[in-house]
Amino acid sequence: MAKSRFEYVRNYELPDPLTPNTFIVVRVDGKGFHKFSDVHEFSKPNDKRALDLMDAAAQAVLEEYKDVVMAFGESDEYSFLLRREAKLYNRRRSKINSSIVSLFTSAYVFHWQRFFPETTLKYPPTFDGRAVMYPSAREVRDYFSWRQADTHINNLYNTTFWALVHGGCSTTESNRILQGTTSKDKNEILFTRFQINYNNLPEAFRKGSVCVRKSSREYGECGSTAMVDNGVSHAAECTDLPKKTSAKGKQAKQFLGVDGKAVVLHLDIIKDEFWTARPWLLI
Amino acid sequence: MAKSRFEYVRNYELPDPLTPNTFIVVRVDGKGFHKFSDVHEFSKPNDKRALDLMDAAAQAVLEEYKDVVMAFGESDEYSFLLRREAKLYNRRRSKINSSIVSLFTSAYVFHWQRFFPETTLKYPPTFDGRAVMYPSAREVRDYFSWRQADTHINNLYNTTFWALVHGGCSTTESNRILQGTTSKDKNEILFTRFQINYNNLPEAFRKGSVCVRKSSREYGECGSTAMVDNGVSHAAECTDLPKKTSAKGKQAKQFLGVDGKAVVLHLDIIKDEFWTARPWLLI
Amino acid sequence: MAKSRFEYVRNYELPDPLTPNTFIVVRVDGKGFHKFSDVHEFSKPNDKRALDLMDAAAQAVLEEYKDVVMAFGESDEYSFLLRREAKLYNRRRSKINSSIVSLFTSAYVFHWQRFFPETTLKYPPTFDGRAVMYPSAREVRDYFSWRQADTHINNLYNTTFWALVHGGCSTTESNRILQGTTSKDKNEILFTRFQINYNNLPEAFRKGSVCVRKSSREYGECGSTAMVDNGVSHAAECTDLPKKTSAKGKQAKQFLGVDGKAVVLHLDIIKDEFWTARPWLLI
Amino acid sequence: MAKSRFEYVRNYELPDPLTPNTFIVVRVDGKGFHKFSDVHEFSKPNDKRALDLMDAAAQAVLEEYKDVVMAFGESDEYSFLLRREAKLYNRRRSKINSSIVSLFTSAYVFHWQRFFPETTLKYPPTFDGRAVMYPSAREVRDYFSWRQADTHINNLYNTTFWALVHGGCSTTESNRILQGTTSKDKNEILFTRFQINYNNLPEAFRKGSVCVRKSSREYGECGSTAMVDNGVSHAAECTDLPKKTSAKGKQAKQFLGVDGKAVVLHLDIIKDEFWTARPWLLI
Repeated sequence: MAKSRFEYVRNYELPDPLTPNTFIVVRVDGKGFHKFSDVHEFSKPNDKRALDLMDAAAQAVLEEYKDVVMAFGESDEYSFLLRREAKLYNRRRSKINSSIVSLFTSAYVFHWQRFFPETTLKYPPTFDGRAVMYPSAREVRDYFSWRQADTHINNLYNTTFWALVHGGCSTTESNRILQGTTSKDKNEILFTRFQINYNNLPEAFRKGSVCVRKSSREYGECGSTAMVDNGVSHAAECTDLPKKTSAKGKQAKQFLGVDGKAVVLHLDIIKDEFWTARPWLLI
Repeated sequence: MAKSRFEYVRNYELPDPLTPNTFIVVRVDGKGFHKFSDVHEFSKPNDKRALDLMDAAAQAVLEEYKDVVMAFGESDEYSFLLRREAKLYNRRRSKINSSIVSLFTSAYVFHWQRFFPETTLKYPPTFDGRAVMYPSAREVRDYFSWRQADTHINNLYNTTFWALVHGGCSTTESNRILQGTTSKDKNEILFTRFQINYNNLPEAFRKGSVCVRKSSREYGECGSTAMVDNGVSHAAECTDLPKKTSAKGKQAKQFLGVDGKAVVLHLDIIKDEFWTARPWLLI
Repeated sequence: MAKSRFEYVRNYELPDPLTPNTFIVVRVDGKGFHKFSDVHEFSKPNDKRALDLMDAAAQAVLEEYKDVVMAFGESDEYSFLLRREAKLYNRRRSKINSSIVSLFTSAYVFHWQRFFPETTLKYPPTFDGRAVMYPSAREVRDYFSWRQADTHINNLYNTTFWALVHGGCSTTESNRILQGTTSKDKNEILFTRFQINYNNLPEAFRKGSVCVRKSSREYGECGSTAMVDNGVSHAAECTDLPKKTSAKGKQAKQFLGVDGKAVVLHLDIIKDEFWTARPWLLI
Repeated sequence: MAKSRFEYVRNYELPDPLTPNTFIVVRVDGKGFHKFSDVHEFSKPNDKRALDLMDAAAQAVLEEYKDVVMAFGESDEYSFLLRREAKLYNRRRSKINSSIVSLFTSAYVFHWQRFFPETTLKYPPTFDGRAVMYPSAREVRDYFSWRQADTHINNLYNTTFWALVHGGCSTTESNRILQGTTSKDKNEILFTRFQINYNNLPEAFRKGSVCVRKSSREYGECGSTAMVDNGVSHAAECTDLPKKTSAKGKQAKQFLGVDGKAVVLHLDIIKDEFWTARPWLLI
């Protein structure tokens, strides 16, 4: 069997390395999730089971890939941050991107039944992904601010829209009412018509999900040894952590190596606090 | 909420189009399937359930993407051929690659229980993928010949290896026995020691799986209306098909538009016959 | 001197190979040649000296790079065709593109005085370049047809425009007169107002310049041993050449190896004749 | 003339943008300059005329492209730094790379006679180029340190080698003598055998050439209004400059807008001093 005669076709597999020492963000997006959420009767505007399932899939990615130091999710999308010095798969773009999308998808289907015990999965859902390079920490901060600002805008709109619909308006009418409204207008509609104080809604809906690894050092020295899935209060974290880890280099990198579990938080990632408390994210 | 202030980060999402009018092959590969097959107790050298599951996942891809005209699978890999003129996702590399890998993975997990009714899936399996461009039909033919030649070489080796192991040799010993042997030697070992005629083993193991769409025209005019999963005999196909469809252009393209089901065959794709019978694959 | 401490920066020089076995076209374009032609008082609509200088620069490229089998130029641009199997610089995109642009530029400045003996070059002219892959011969044919059609359209416009200007119209007025006119209209203006039969103008202006290598075999068997810079009549070429070289493979490739001189022709490259007479261009 | 029928080939010209907000270094390298320097009888180990010509070509690049803020040259190569925020040609890789290589080449040939008044240029020299992205200032510093360290290593070797050759050794013998020697060994050979103190040799040879723009502010406030081609002493520059311009942003950027002339210096660029005195290079 003349294997070698055909093997030249391998030469068409060209290298596609990402520039060294840039931050890499892989964003995974649901394909046709409008239909998918209808078919599986997701509650609107937010289905906690669906969001928790997304979080579980993201956790699987963080637990598999140590170079993925953080993720942020909302709705049917999740963004994964690979640290600047990541060497994963020699930084091959297609390999990194496809592996993360595949694991995320696989975990989503794998864990479906745990989060939707009474809903049969009717067909296999699909996600796509893209890997983007960011040269500096500033851009990474702005990237995640962009996604969280988007979460807020979409959720405020959807919350008001579905309040109107559940209150009896048609979808057409609800869209018309919301056209051209400001954030303040929507808050007003929610409060005066439906007695909903937007700021009292669950943070998971208003802020999306952040998935980060808790370093063992935090566990050890702070004593907060419990693995917490949701709602870890930010205040409870080690306050002496930043000082000890802010130095770029060996010390900081040890935090990446430990087997901290990936936990899901719902908090502001636009302001500095989240980032200064976790200096290893942007080194 | 200053959405626009952060939105500039979108400019870092650079275009990645594939050259127009080239054939695209997306190859999906299992990650860590040696361990995966051990954990899930796949029978060796071939586990029919596992291969059928791979085929089912491939069929899901062909049924979703009309631009995917053919696929070939063996072991834990599957290669998908997109026709030369495919416009899928404006030929964006990452989008095409990640979508196909994701759907394949999703279908694999989704259909697991159907093919492994008595084996619980223990963790989510992962595949990676890459998209490769081939400028001409010759290279596409050689690509698939390369994969099928690989199937033969691996399967002959594995079949002999596991015959030795099941016959009492240690794995180390079996590897040593096979070192430096030719195909003829392995056939000889199989026959004299184990009374196995390699050529009588199932074609699914020796030739891998080809997934192609049966055009409705074939169904209609040939009368072979049954959807057949495995073992469609090549001889049974319409012999007048090639003549009518060999013209490049409109006539041929109509065959891509019809909702022919994706069927799985086990036959030689190195020789011309397979290709001349399906002229729409390489137009 | 710690050389190695800094050398890691080489890792940022990423590979950029072009897909094997595709045709490569490198198009070189003059930068700011409107101003350049004014400053150096090029005659309008065509300056024969300037076009001959472009041709000489293109010839330098063909004589340096055996993988460049043909070039086509008009105005301040020149397109170079690399044969499908070219291995030049391992098909590195930047290396191929920059080397050809550099040599073209260098030869342009180097030969300036020969073509403009009475005009001092006032500042160094610049060209840019891009390398484009074409998977099949059809696209290469269409690429060069595109450029030659463009030559025709531009030259007819410019010829009529400058006839009007030289005849006393202002440039604004001339542009206004030509607005919305067809080819037929422009031919009519040239003929009735200026007694110019467009088809009698030099082919160099109407068809642009084709630069191809004359194989030694042509010289040898046809006896046309003289190196001809311009105006080699197409009819004079060997008529038995195509038959002997049309076979793809060894025979045809020998023609690439010979040290045929690059000659400049002015003829139709949209029709088949040019290409069938030189089968080695598209193998 | 069916222009539109062919124009589809433009779709094969795919975008090739560089990541925003990364530093870009374009390195231009002489092709076959060993032969070129022999043919044109460059003096060895260093030919001041040839180096000055390289510097003049680099100055032409800085004067044309405001986004090029600095260049470093040695032997037959020159590296150009584009500032992080450069928008030149929408950051298209091929356009940036080919334009800079072309202008450099063009200026080299254009200025030849000025620097080699008694040597006729025998054939057009060629350079190639590549564009490399560096995400941070640290890497840019290290890139230029790499090149200047290389300058030192090469020049010390060449100086010793040619001293031996001019002193009567054959080239083979000279290479043998130098094999395995340290920097200290070579300094020793130069001093004891030839009474050459390496550190007293011209800085232009030992340190290469740095080409930077003098901001008008430096001219204005320091009073050093003369345009100096070579040998501008570093000490003479404004000492108050760094303080006033170190702030990232508006203030600093004004320095890029001014039409400071590009001057050539021969100084250490591995240590901090050069960079802290010109904060606009790395913003």
